[in-house]
Amino acid sequence: MEYRTHQCGKITEQYIGEKVTITGWVQKRRDLGGLIFIDLRDRSGIVQIVFSPEVSAEALETAEKVRSEYVLTVTGTVLERDQSTVNPAMNTGKIEISGEEIKILNSAKTPPFSISEDIEINEDIRLKYRYLDLRRPVMQETLKMRHEVTRFIRNFLETEEFMEMETPMLTKSTPEGARDYLVPSRVHPGEFYALPQSPQLFKQLLMVSGFEKYYQIVRCFRDEDLRADRQPEFTQVDIETSFMGQEALLSMMEEMMTGLVKKVKGADIPKPFPRMTYKEAMDRYGSDKPDTRFGLELINVSDVVKQSGFKVFAAAVENGGEVKAINVKGKAADYSRKDIDGLTEFTARYGAKGLAWMKVEASGLKGPISKFFNEEDAANLINVLNAEEGDLLLFVADKSSVVADSLGALRQKLGKDLGLIDQLKFNFLWVVDFPLVEYDEDAERYVALHHPFTMPKTEDLHLMDSNPSEVRAQAYDLVLNGYELGGGSQRIYERDVQEKMFKTLGFSEEGAREEFGFLLDAFEYGTPPHGGIALGLDRMVMLLAGRTNLRDTIAFPKTASASCLLTNAPSPVNEKQLDELHLGLKVKQESN
Amino acid sequence: MEYRTHQCGKITEQYIGEKVTITGWVQKRRDLGGLIFIDLRDRSGIVQIVFSPEVSAEALETAEKVRSEYVLTVTGTVLERDQSTVNPAMNTGKIEISGEEIKILNSAKTPPFSISEDIEINEDIRLKYRYLDLRRPVMQETLKMRHEVTRFIRNFLETEEFMEMETPMLTKSTPEGARDYLVPSRVHPGEFYALPQSPQLFKQLLMVSGFEKYYQIVRCFRDEDLRADRQPEFTQVDIETSFMGQEALLSMMEEMMTGLVKKVKGADIPKPFPRMTYKEAMDRYGSDKPDTRFGLELINVSDVVKQSGFKVFAAAVENGGEVKAINVKGKAADYSRKDIDGLTEFTARYGAKGLAWMKVEASGLKGPISKFFNEEDAANLINVLNAEEGDLLLFVADKSSVVADSLGALRQKLGKDLGLIDQLKFNFLWVVDFPLVEYDEDAERYVALHHPFTMPKTEDLHLMDSNPSEVRAQAYDLVLNGYELGGGSQRIYERDVQEKMFKTLGFSEEGAREEFGFLLDAFEYGTPPHGGIALGLDRMVMLLAGRTNLRDTIAFPKTASASCLLTNAPSPVNEKQLDELHLGLKVKQESN
Repeated sequence: MEYRTHQCGKITEQYIGEKVTITGWVQKRRDLGGLIFIDLRDRSGIVQIVFSPEVSAEALETAEKVRSEYVLTVTGTVLERDQSTVNPAMNTGKIEISGEEIKILNSAKTPPFSISEDIEINEDIRLKYRYLDLRRPVMQETLKMRHEVTRFIRNFLETEEFMEMETPMLTKSTPEGARDYLVPSRVHPGEFYALPQSPQLFKQLLMVSGFEKYYQIVRCFRDEDLRADRQPEFTQVDIETSFMGQEALLSMMEEMMTGLVKKVKGADIPKPFPRMTYKEAMDRYGSDKPDTRFGLELINVSDVVKQSGFKVFAAAVENGGEVKAINVKGKAADYSRKDIDGLTEFTARYGAKGLAWMKVEASGLKGPISKFFNEEDAANLINVLNAEEGDLLLFVADKSSVVADSLGALRQKLGKDLGLIDQLKFNFLWVVDFPLVEYDEDAERYVALHHPFTMPKTEDLHLMDSNPSEVRAQAYDLVLNGYELGGGSQRIYERDVQEKMFKTLGFSEEGAREEFGFLLDAFEYGTPPHGGIALGLDRMVMLLAGRTNLRDTIAFPKTASASCLLTNAPSPVNEKQLDELHLGLKVKQESN
Repeated sequence: MEYRTHQCGKITEQYIGEKVTITGWVQKRRDLGGLIFIDLRDRSGIVQIVFSPEVSAEALETAEKVRSEYVLTVTGTVLERDQSTVNPAMNTGKIEISGEEIKILNSAKTPPFSISEDIEINEDIRLKYRYLDLRRPVMQETLKMRHEVTRFIRNFLETEEFMEMETPMLTKSTPEGARDYLVPSRVHPGEFYALPQSPQLFKQLLMVSGFEKYYQIVRCFRDEDLRADRQPEFTQVDIETSFMGQEALLSMMEEMMTGLVKKVKGADIPKPFPRMTYKEAMDRYGSDKPDTRFGLELINVSDVVKQSGFKVFAAAVENGGEVKAINVKGKAADYSRKDIDGLTEFTARYGAKGLAWMKVEASGLKGPISKFFNEEDAANLINVLNAEEGDLLLFVADKSSVVADSLGALRQKLGKDLGLIDQLKFNFLWVVDFPLVEYDEDAERYVALHHPFTMPKTEDLHLMDSNPSEVRAQAYDLVLNGYELGGGSQRIYERDVQEKMFKTLGFSEEGAREEFGFLLDAFEYGTPPHGGIALGLDRMVMLLAGRTNLRDTIAFPKTASASCLLTNAPSPVNEKQLDELHLGLKVKQESN
């Protein structure tokens, strides 16, 4: 008996009268009036089989032993269903198979959760039994979409003459950047490899080598404390080009992303994508990855309030900070004092010392601080905030970064709470003109916002010495619905610009050489103008699949404590393994 | 000035008269009679540019400053070359570009070796300056072929409805198998991840999950002492299927490999591939990966010599060993005693205690041992070995494994030395029916030849208790020109067979559960019949590209001591990094 002539989910009415053999898992078994119905599932879908004593008493007898998730091979004839039992929701809903032969390939214990129903299951249980969780239709669909996304991107880039090239996983630790995962060397006592945070240096070297168009869909690693949308290992669509420039690269990426959304969602996304400078994004949304699917923008009221009688506002402006507000249109009545206290607590998590508020009533501004605003100030506020009766106005006064963080987060929360977000929208956005460097208070020096090879904008080069924080970079992020899908930059390829950059970052010539020696060496042998981008595949799939949990896009993910509940990794190793690696533990090892 | 309107290597006579802009690296600059000729190279190839004072004195002046490997953008008009200067070897050999504008994008130091000439360069230098080494045409070609190979395989498998699925890199250490690379956990003190030696368990779990057809082109890791054709990290084409069976899988692989060879080499390889049992391969070639491009097969003469007067031969057979010979046809005159001493030394490296020899002359067998053979024995030997005047006969008498190793290696050496190998041939071969287990003298138990989930042949199941070493596995290796390209097996999916296997391997039920717990758990929930194969991508590219060094197929490879000469990985890390990982060194760390 062969395994299959057809796939379960593809047996439609066109096969009526034909004999077929199918193999798969038992989704459901029902006994009904002396008959046994089995829904058999394979990768393609589900089909119904019916066993009856008239057709084969032997097959019926075997079918009786069958339980959920047994693996069966069944041969039978495709019959048209009674009109009354047609299931229009299923591809195979117009037919059923009259089972003539049945072979149990394997039995199954009762699974710890239902494979067929889309129910809420504790995630730890799902991760422990991931092989069963992955049988669930929603997980099958998500991973199929991941495959389609990957495939589309490969085909797109290869059509554009990109070469897939592999870079090392066992590479060198670089103290800059996030924390590395280290791999001890057995052959070189006391020495370590690092797993790559990204193939950044290697892809730039491939440009020095003249490959011109590189791509790789590659695993990257960061040993950081995890948030909901982070994994210790993640997959990156990594791209680098020579002789292309920022405009051509961004336009190509738009082509790729719109093609992808069309392919997997059927949606048409207009091109070119909107662009926003980093400065504008921070001003209007308090975020460098704004979700533009809804309004609730941040409005700067510093000029209006700096002379007002409300000392908190005036002082914030006086001290170099600012006052910004969100106008929550028409929602004044929906927010009680207690509700607003909740919002205040929320913004406090982002460093805001308070959340001031007023409501707009027919008679003017109302609320605990309204008394501090004279008629003229109130009118100005109403004007600037485009406020009308029934609006709720929320204010934060602080230094710019706190205002942005807290009001930006509050905006996102309100958008969600108030149902302002259209879940069907795909709002792509380029955020451009990032600052080249920022001042690190702890390190007491400037640090690169992207990395030390990011090209400054030509027109800002003259500020490198006098006012580094004002220099804008040729760097860009691709944002989708408030998530950073990825980012990149054009790279410095000229020696004098690179030297200026290192000087700004406080590196001595020696220090720079120690840190980036081989790349600087490489750059002396004819480096082409080059630049690139890297996109997070896991996050891309999450957004396209409409999931909210990054783990649902990864076949075998890790928990927030970087554990694999399926394999129990990480785990203790034995003494011999440690000895070979010239290592000792500074903790008590569990016995093993 | 834009970077390019055309790629260098694609400007042929069809563009004569057109104005073009090109960008690339200076391959060569020559001054000739007041003119300057520059060969400009990009990924697509090379084109010649000529600068003359008549066309542009300014461009000529800039061109004078140019040196090898400078990066230039040049605009000029495509001209037909003089008949006398046409270079038919070049795609662009019928034209040249009259340079009108030139811009130096970047200068270059003189490279440590020539990029243009195909000369022998010390490999350590090549690896240190890998970014320059990769500019050399031969390396560009090899990596382009690697890309083509990868692309072909992906397209083939995706057309066959395989899903690309990713498996974890940070996984669990398993003491069985080769030595793992370990990754210390920061979050879980004293615990470690392991980098995967292969995604074996995960791909089997994906079958349990019902994905049916999985593939991944994936990095794998082994911390073993390296040989010329090994790397600590290597790339594997990893495949697993459900409901397919060995025959269908092998046939699909033949389809893939013949299609690939056709695509990248234009050669037609007949299908199906020849098959040979493991036993036959060892008998005839002394190797489980025989190079069948030439003869020199091993011939068993045990029966003929066991009664002979030559005690060494007789004793070997008596002690359970064997005597085998290679007939080196017509080469008796070419091998002096000293030459044969060299061969003896060679076989000694493989454990042979001696290499006996005779030459066939008109009068019969000659040589130091010929006197031990009477007329009848000599006639029988000549008959069995199909020997004629002028043949050289080489014998090893020892236990089977030593005979196979030493004569197998000697055969390969003679094939190469005597030029018997047709380098244009692609001899694929399936080696099948591997033993399921072998007895490990050190461990004093049977160990799995492939792994403990390899399915025994059904007809051998009854031998599992009585004579495990005679049980053949449903395992197969794909061999190409004497190299193991890859291998795989059908997996055990039935509980009773799996229990038998563990018993044979000396595992207690508890021990098996400790070692393979989650996989055994998974197998209880309806495991489909499944099996797979894994092919070494690096080696595949090496053989297709006609290279002899695996490192030449990898953009950034490691040396035999697992070092990267470009980045100096591995390297010492700082105390803080070790502290965070709860580790201490048992060696003196170099200062850093």
